[in-house]
Parts: sequence; C-alpha cells; structure tokens
Amino acid sequence: MPVTFCLDFGNTRLKCAVFEERLLVDVILLEQDILAHLQKLILQYRPQKSILSSVINHPAEVEQLLGAATRFHKLNHQSKIPFATPVGKPETIGADRLAICAAAVDLFPGRHNLAIALGTCITYNFINVFHEFLGGSISPGLQMRFRAMHEQTALLPLVKPIHHFPLVGYDTDTNLQSGVILGMSKEIDGIIDAYKERYANLAISLTGGDMDFFRPHLKNHIYTDPFLLYKGLLAISERNNQ
Amino acid sequence: MPVTFCLDFGNTRLKCAVFEERLLVDVILLEQDILAHLQKLILQYRPQKSILSSVINHPAEVEQLLGAATRFHKLNHQSKIPFATPVGKPETIGADRLAICAAAVDLFPGRHNLAIALGTCITYNFINVFHEFLGGSISPGLQMRFRAMHEQTALLPLVKPIHHFPLVGYDTDTNLQSGVILGMSKEIDGIIDAYKERYANLAISLTGGDMDFFRPHLKNHIYTDPFLLYKGLLAISERNNQ
Repeated sequence: MPVTFCLDFGNTRLKCAVFEERLLVDVILLEQDILAHLQKLILQYRPQKSILSSVINHPAEVEQLLGAATRFHKLNHQSKIPFATPVGKPETIGADRLAICAAAVDLFPGRHNLAIALGTCITYNFINVFHEFLGGSISPGLQMRFRAMHEQTALLPLVKPIHHFPLVGYDTDTNLQSGVILGMSKEIDGIIDAYKERYANLAISLTGGDMDFFRPHLKNHIYTDPFLLYKGLLAISERNNQ
Repeated sequence: MPVTFCLDFGNTRLKCAVFEERLLVDVILLEQDILAHLQKLILQYRPQKSILSSVINHPAEVEQLLGAATRFHKLNHQSKIPFATPVGKPETIGADRLAICAAAVDLFPGRHNLAIALGTCITYNFINVFHEFLGGSISPGLQMRFRAMHEQTALLPLVKPIHHFPLVGYDTDTNLQSGVILGMSKEIDGIIDAYKERYANLAISLTGGDMDFFRPHLKNHIYTDPFLLYKGLLAISERNNQ
C-alpha cells in the first residue's frame, strides 16, 4: 500500500503523519534527533512520497533525507494548491496555513471558508467561495499565553491549562485559566461572529492540538477535526508529487 | 494644598500620579533611576501622603524614601479597603487589582462591579453588590501578545498596535494586528457578556493605557476612565494614611 509522510514542523513540535493511501495510520512526534528518528521511520514505513510544511528554520538535511528516500515536496506558495493567494506577499503565508486551507476547501468547496488552527499561535484563515485565500488573523496560542504571563511579569506563575475552571477565578491559577481558556474561547467565537456578519454561507472548521480545551466553551457550531492539517498536506502532496 | 503621591509599579512601567486634594494634576512616568527621580518629585511637589501599589520586586529604598518624606502606605490585602476579600489567599491578589476595585466600588456602590484593567496583563475583577471581591481572570495584555508571538516563534516579526486594520489581515503585520487587537476586543466583550448573563445590575468599568485601541471595537457600553487605578489608590490612601 503506497505510504505518504506528511510532516508538520511547527514552533512547538515537529510531527510526522503517516498515510496509507488516504488512511491516516499514525501521527508521530519527532524526537530531539530528528534525522535519526526520520531515518528510522523511513525504514519502518518505506514511504513513496513525502511533503513538508515548516514554519521554522529546520536543518537542510531533513529535506535532503526525504528527497533521497521519497518523492518529496516542500510546501510553499508556489505549490499547486486548490485555491489562489491574491495577497501582496504570498511568500509570507505560513505553509501550515496553506495546508489547513487546502483541507477546508476540499471539505466545503462551494462555500466561504474560515479555517481556524489552534497551535503555537491561533491562525484564522479565510478563503472565499471563489477559492481565493484573502488572509485572516494570527493571535497567541494556549501555551504561549500562559508562558508569556509567566515570563513577562515578575510574579505570575507558569500555569497549565485544565478542563474545568470557574468564570470567576478564585486564586491565581484559576484567574489565569479563566483568562486564557475562557478568553480564547470568547475571542474565537467573536471572530467567527465577525466573519458571519460579513459573509453568508460560511463554513467554519477548527483544528489543532488544543481544541478540546475550547470546544465546551464555544457557542458557535463548528466542524472540528484534529487532523485537518495532515489531510490538507496529503491533498497537496497528491497534486505535487506525481 | 495637601498633595498625595499615588504610585503604580507595574511590570512594564512605574508611574507616579500626583493629586492636589482630590484633583489629579499629573501622571509621571518614572525614569530608570527611580530613587533619584522620586527624590526630585518629592522636592518639587512636597507631598504629605503617599501610597504604593506594586506587583514587582521593587527596591526596598523606595519605601524607605517615601516613608521618610511622607505618611506612606503600601497597599496590600490587609489595608483598609471598601470591600472584603473572601477568597482563599487574599495575600496573592495583585495590589493593582485592589486599587481598581476600590475605585469601581466607590463609583457604583449599589451594584455588582466588573472592573477591567488593560495593562501588561488584562485583569477582570469582580466585586459583588455585597462588596465582596470574588476574583476574576487574568490574560495577556496588548504588548505582551505581540511580544510573545515574536519571541516564541521562529519567524513572526514584532509588530506594533495600530488603530485601523482590517478584519481579514492581508499581510503578516495586519494578520497579527487583527488577531491581537480584534481578538482582545472579542475576548473582552465575550467575558463581559458571560458576567452579564450571570449577574443582573452589573456595572462595568474599563481602564488602562491601551484602552483606546479597543474602544471602537467593543459592542458593550462601558464606563471608561484612564485614571481609575490612581483614583482607587487615592481613596485607599484616605482610609489608611490618617
């Protein structure tokens, strides 16, 4: 069965999704020694194709390794993608955003799309019904908010997200949890509402590792899929790795 | 005319507000050499009283200087304040939050109060109609969000807030401006709505240096005053510096 590696190099984590045909069989968090780990995965899965979305300055050897072992494509704004990018500097659009948009357009091709990804940052990505990516917003992600409050103040501790906390935090931890998690939920709902006011026939999709913290607090009904980015990468790989 | 210094030592800036009786006559940003600057201000204004709200580890000499030159009070949870603090660890409540709550309760004594301060962090502070501070939320402030996205990612630039930006950012800067400024506005409106759903007869007040960036985007009608914290400090000084 033909195997494709869909790699997502983000600011917090480097991950490799393994597809057999179109079936996602594994998502692997790459360990410290990326090259050795990748080499091991290549021997284990023997992928025919690979695609990389990176928003970091990764070692060039990663691309050499994937290029030698597979039909490799590095996602960028010149890749064949199922939408246009009529913005001033398409080369500055994060590859992760291109991947998520590709998945959203595949899912809801006849509608305006707002695709939201909760990663190191939140990205809000708008593709209109004519399949034009027009941009969106970027704001700090869950862990980033907790970390920033700890690092950029003298006295606030580093707090972890939890699933149950009160609206009115009663101590430092719950104040921060309410501020970050409820605050982000309200931000997400509010931005969605702003798009809904402007665009009828809007499809909304949400992905990212931190999704589960927010879902209970969101009032908007949203399509969620933790693997949207990988599915977008697979679709782009199929167009570019022939 | 009796002069009071109301000092606010925050994570980003150290400021000294000067009141003649109850009239705010100046707000001074303290320079690098705080002690020398304070000494100069004391000679210039000859204050009778002073009060300090600090959420940082400031030099002990500041308190010695103010204590020698004025009737000095350092705000803490044991100060005489116009509300109770029936939370588990009142000693962990930031002094700045106590000051803002004092001002809100003075303004709207017969109502539930939600006092919001936009500083290094956003603090949401809830005091019920029985004048009990029950806590609230803390989330990252405006500059903190921009700085965190720059510092905690490989490629995002440090962007400054601006007053006019589109919902759908069309390049990196406008994506970040929309994400941070519109995102924060939606967060603030959403948290206010959550309180409104729970508490009837709720008075809402908003203060802080970054207020003007958000006001045009907020749907909720809010009492705003850039000097709320200093007014709260003055009120607390009157109760504690007899």
